[in-house]
Amino acid sequence: MMQRENPVEEAFHIRKLEISDKEKGFIELLRQLTVCDSVSDEKFNERFEEIGKYGDDHRICVIEDVRSGKIVATGSVFIEKKFVRNCGKAGHIEDVVVDSSARGLQLGKRIVEYLADHAHSMGCYKVILDCTEENRPFYEKCGFKKKEIQMVKYFV
Amino acid sequence: MMQRENPVEEAFHIRKLEISDKEKGFIELLRQLTVCDSVSDEKFNERFEEIGKYGDDHRICVIEDVRSGKIVATGSVFIEKKFVRNCGKAGHIEDVVVDSSARGLQLGKRIVEYLADHAHSMGCYKVILDCTEENRPFYEKCGFKKKEIQMVKYFV
Repeated sequence: MMQRENPVEEAFHIRKLEISDKEKGFIELLRQLTVCDSVSDEKFNERFEEIGKYGDDHRICVIEDVRSGKIVATGSVFIEKKFVRNCGKAGHIEDVVVDSSARGLQLGKRIVEYLADHAHSMGCYKVILDCTEENRPFYEKCGFKKKEIQMVKYFV
Repeated sequence: MMQRENPVEEAFHIRKLEISDKEKGFIELLRQLTVCDSVSDEKFNERFEEIGKYGDDHRICVIEDVRSGKIVATGSVFIEKKFVRNCGKAGHIEDVVVDSSARGLQLGKRIVEYLADHAHSMGCYKVILDCTEENRPFYEKCGFKKKEIQMVKYFV
């Protein structure tokens, strides 16, 4: 029998979001991040299709706990096409969350590295994200550096 | 003869980026913001078309000095489709710059308000941007508040 090189990687499978992930706790996971009421299947499918139209320019990844069949981590990145930087591209990472029951397994790091690698492979000259000061050490471990400040205007 | 209500608004016309704006100093203006070498007409047109495919989901606006025919201010906003916030949308403002010769005319404020209004009209629950601490007072005047910190990872 083959020796298991990395049991965590085998037990937690990282991949693109699939339309069936709504049944695997994807929305409940997002609720650990911010406001996210119940979403109807119709609304979920519609948004899934809308994002799908962007192809590789908007990638949502998830980690599935193979044993339980639950989604335990997710994050997204979209590719912004610019004129600056000689018509460069920038990746924007958003909505990274790891299930509270699956902390300490480096799943967040795997998500961020997956998303940063995707941005890199799409030809981005940088990838950016906004986070709390509290989460700064985590992103520094992922190879990020603090740069500017985030400003927000809410409409609701 | 009609009285001119607002001579600055008449002299500086705000509108969507047009493909002919490359000839009106659009790239030179971006160079005041960050690295932006000369861009060939072919490359410019290709990027213009790519961004155009996103329709109202990626809006670049410019202000033209009607007298000189030059582009003196610009900014962009793109609409990110999310699952959080009940399948909400967030606007991301990027690459705001005002020509050094046209400062003090509130053109930056007009750009940011145009972009924020666009995000609002597209159904966004918020609009966000990253800026230096130095530019914070300007964005506060535009109705923004500081929230988080920006982290970046460069690939080049």
